[in-house]
Amino acid sequence: MTDTVKLAEYLFTRLNQLGASAVHGVPGDFNLDLLDFVEPSGLLWVGNTNELNAGYAADGYSRIRGIGALVTTFGVGELSAINAIAGAYAERAPVVHIVGTPNRATQDGKVRVHHTFNDGNFRRFGQMHAHVTVAQTSLRDPLTAPQEIDRVLQQCLIHSRPVYIEVPVDLVEVPVRSANLKNPLKLPETLVTPATSDAISQVLDKLYAANRPIVLFDGECRALNITKEVQSIVEATKCPTWTTSYGRGLIDESLPNFQGVYKGAFDDQSIQNFFEQADLVLIFGPHFSTTNSYALTAKPNPELSIIFSDNEIEIGSTILRDIPARLAVSQLRKQLDISKIAQYSASDLQGLSWHDSSSISFSTVAKDEVIAHSKLWDLFTSFIRPGDIVMGETGTSGYGVREMRTPPNVRIFAPVTWLSIGYMLPAAQGAALAQRQMQAQSNGATDGKKANNGRTILFIGDGSLQMTVQEISTMIRHDLNVIIVVLNNDGYTIERAIHGLKESYNDVAAWRYLGAPSFFGAKEGTFTAQARTWGELEKVLSSKELTEGTGLRMVELFLDRKDVPKGPLAMLMGKEQKRMEGLKTKREVIP
Amino acid sequence: MTDTVKLAEYLFTRLNQLGASAVHGVPGDFNLDLLDFVEPSGLLWVGNTNELNAGYAADGYSRIRGIGALVTTFGVGELSAINAIAGAYAERAPVVHIVGTPNRATQDGKVRVHHTFNDGNFRRFGQMHAHVTVAQTSLRDPLTAPQEIDRVLQQCLIHSRPVYIEVPVDLVEVPVRSANLKNPLKLPETLVTPATSDAISQVLDKLYAANRPIVLFDGECRALNITKEVQSIVEATKCPTWTTSYGRGLIDESLPNFQGVYKGAFDDQSIQNFFEQADLVLIFGPHFSTTNSYALTAKPNPELSIIFSDNEIEIGSTILRDIPARLAVSQLRKQLDISKIAQYSASDLQGLSWHDSSSISFSTVAKDEVIAHSKLWDLFTSFIRPGDIVMGETGTSGYGVREMRTPPNVRIFAPVTWLSIGYMLPAAQGAALAQRQMQAQSNGATDGKKANNGRTILFIGDGSLQMTVQEISTMIRHDLNVIIVVLNNDGYTIERAIHGLKESYNDVAAWRYLGAPSFFGAKEGTFTAQARTWGELEKVLSSKELTEGTGLRMVELFLDRKDVPKGPLAMLMGKEQKRMEGLKTKREVIP
Repeated sequence: MTDTVKLAEYLFTRLNQLGASAVHGVPGDFNLDLLDFVEPSGLLWVGNTNELNAGYAADGYSRIRGIGALVTTFGVGELSAINAIAGAYAERAPVVHIVGTPNRATQDGKVRVHHTFNDGNFRRFGQMHAHVTVAQTSLRDPLTAPQEIDRVLQQCLIHSRPVYIEVPVDLVEVPVRSANLKNPLKLPETLVTPATSDAISQVLDKLYAANRPIVLFDGECRALNITKEVQSIVEATKCPTWTTSYGRGLIDESLPNFQGVYKGAFDDQSIQNFFEQADLVLIFGPHFSTTNSYALTAKPNPELSIIFSDNEIEIGSTILRDIPARLAVSQLRKQLDISKIAQYSASDLQGLSWHDSSSISFSTVAKDEVIAHSKLWDLFTSFIRPGDIVMGETGTSGYGVREMRTPPNVRIFAPVTWLSIGYMLPAAQGAALAQRQMQAQSNGATDGKKANNGRTILFIGDGSLQMTVQEISTMIRHDLNVIIVVLNNDGYTIERAIHGLKESYNDVAAWRYLGAPSFFGAKEGTFTAQARTWGELEKVLSSKELTEGTGLRMVELFLDRKDVPKGPLAMLMGKEQKRMEGLKTKREVIP
Repeated sequence: MTDTVKLAEYLFTRLNQLGASAVHGVPGDFNLDLLDFVEPSGLLWVGNTNELNAGYAADGYSRIRGIGALVTTFGVGELSAINAIAGAYAERAPVVHIVGTPNRATQDGKVRVHHTFNDGNFRRFGQMHAHVTVAQTSLRDPLTAPQEIDRVLQQCLIHSRPVYIEVPVDLVEVPVRSANLKNPLKLPETLVTPATSDAISQVLDKLYAANRPIVLFDGECRALNITKEVQSIVEATKCPTWTTSYGRGLIDESLPNFQGVYKGAFDDQSIQNFFEQADLVLIFGPHFSTTNSYALTAKPNPELSIIFSDNEIEIGSTILRDIPARLAVSQLRKQLDISKIAQYSASDLQGLSWHDSSSISFSTVAKDEVIAHSKLWDLFTSFIRPGDIVMGETGTSGYGVREMRTPPNVRIFAPVTWLSIGYMLPAAQGAALAQRQMQAQSNGATDGKKANNGRTILFIGDGSLQMTVQEISTMIRHDLNVIIVVLNNDGYTIERAIHGLKESYNDVAAWRYLGAPSFFGAKEGTFTAQARTWGELEKVLSSKELTEGTGLRMVELFLDRKDVPKGPLAMLMGKEQKRMEGLKTKREVIP
């Protein structure tokens, strides 16, 4: 006789094996039976306030943990979440979207049931999800269900992109073969072929021949699971190394040859010169979207680039296919003869200032000067601790965070490509939960809460906060260590910079933001504070309740509605101010 | 020389002509240029807190006003709203979804711009919207743009369903021909054909031959724009007339032959008998979804039915096509010879008790008895005034409201088919705004705010409120007359009734709900109150601040987490309680 488990047990056991120890989502009548199996399978049920937030949270969780899951209900729930799933696709977050659907009799009978268009069509929402996921399955048959689940989860991990699984109510408890569960789900093993060896030889030849090689690694390194190897190559070669907004925090940024974010046309002239003088750029895991590449100006000269992406190595205009990044990068590291790599002299490296630039401190700024972006991000640097997660929402916050200096072992979330405002707050809930669960696991602690001393620090504007504010209640409910810094600049400042500096459509309602913890049910005495000047901010940041406390803490900063960080937003704001003065300006691609 | 207007002016002028005097939505970089033209075109820009809420609000607005519009930004914005658009499709709300998209050069150049999947594909989100809208256009050509806009808006009105319009940034200010604007947009005129006359004759023959004819009108009468004619038929024929959840409030419910909602198997035996004895049921604008028809038990015998829907009359098993409902119903009314219609005797009508049942009052209930559904909806009846809009969110609230007695001229929103929880709160914002604008218009008042004495009264559970709570701030910002009654029953009671009575996944976080007005920026002294007993509720409902006040007011009621209105939810709760006791139960279609 064959060993069996219930289908839902199979699914959740698999997720647990892969590290998805928490399931985000919202209950709904077609998924309640599924939810019966979440906690018995050893997973935490998060219970978000709405499905879009659940999707964002699962995305944040997955980027820290390596996989995330959410459960929604047919139609209404899954479509509410679909923008989060699209964002996970765009920015390669491995999210498993599980949808509880009507039972098969209802579907086959085309019953005019609620959560449909009253037309007997049950396939529409799955079809919509096919646009935003890399694999889909609508489970129908217990005999093939285990392999279908495994296939879809594999695709999720291979591509680091979302997948979609429909589970009809009447299949939840149906027995399926459990045999596969005995072996952890594996990704296809890579295959070393002559093509690989040949490609690596070509790369090494180019590298050894170069006089001024540099490295640029990007955020898809996380998706390709090559961050460790890339770090090792950066350490070994000592090549000057830059990253992008998306790559921030993936490797040790205290390495002496790490040079921060390459900002293309927005960078210091000395850095732009350095890139021009380079005769080889090794690029790992590129993601040259306009925002992540300063309007494509930070994309190095293709003729001098060797690019490692999913399954290709691109050397100049030649694409060598079917060479998985993980294999390529590990082979490259293995075969690397450091002695053959050109070394820079000290004078060559002049003008590379990431580690030199002395960070300003509170003692050097006027106490009664109002808070402004020009110094804010430097002054916050000393507040960040190793082990923290630092998140900057799309808007002025994100543009501040993406260039902020942080200590080693700090993961960073900043605007990359999807830029759906409101994303970062629920993502902070997911990331903070993943952080706690991983720390508990590595400590062998039985009580996850006690084990955690990492913090998730979210910088977010007032307009973005309003989008998804209710997820603060989920942070409170699960007692997550989250510090929310609200940048209250009286509306959508990033939009004002783009177009409509003084237009009322860029205003938002004036909330009493620090009322959030109380409204959302936090215990009395939850830390909140406001600051308008550097003196006030210094006092807030030195408060022990903030720095040594746990759970939710919230700080509101007041900034001028026209104040933006230097760089792309300052450029846009300048153009918009000129337009307001009646000058003709050309609309820029937003960097 | 041809007269021209800018494309955006054309679009918004058309919307204004059709009655969409407000545009909901959220600014985003690809729609800011469009927004420049909203208020100059005479429309109010609402400025919602997020796009899903904007979509829900536009839906609520459109059901009162006859058309609604929202503007979102490409990708992130439009996908956040797509569940609301789907709901508008399912329940026939005429919503125009306008999306600001990247300029044509960016799209044609396949630029890796933000808000995409970084793959140069700009068509994906339009394709997703094709699943949930009746017409779409991606504007590209100024020469055809006016007729494209007109075509799509016509489809919106014909079907009373959502449509989708993409406007690239660089087309916003391009001149287009303005000639069409001189004539209001018209729907195709109906065509009286021999088939129509024949069909109406058949209907009249059946009606005159019937001994016990009855009428059932449903909510699609609103979409088909036949409510006035149906009311006239109901008045003239004096046939006993029922409606559905979806049809509530569409015709004058004080008519003596109006009998409330037909509840099928959940109705009193006397009513079920009455339906069984009927030999003809005239059905107008049917929408027999499970929820709207008490699990399909309230769908009359097809063999005895004559059904008027979009373009068909169904007589028994015969479908007569190409007869538009508006034409059919007006012809029927015109040709009706009342003297040939069977009249009921008083004794025939015994057992029809909608108008007889004496409503209970606060004087007859114990002051210290805790609030419960059994009496709540009767006791709230006297609070409702003609001109109010009464909304009951999916959950216990909706099941209460859908059978609640209300005065004439009260529009009612109750669960129908889409049942996306969280919908009703933003929909209340939209409905309240439409109510104010319409009243201002009919009063000829220049100041919309002063003119309004209608109120929108929203009943909503704690779990649903959490989904979309931030739209309370939009109600405050626009000073809308909304009374929110929160039914705090400590979680998703409707889900507990369906499955998982005691499961923690049906819990929600405990908020301090009455902190909402303060948190969301309402002026000090905004009315809030709590009630746990009938005595407390009586006091609250007699407060002048509540009854005579304006703007936002908020009341929190505490109910037991297992308490549900009688009818379908009580049936489900009973079954779930039996299941908890270990008895085998069959899962029901949720009515």
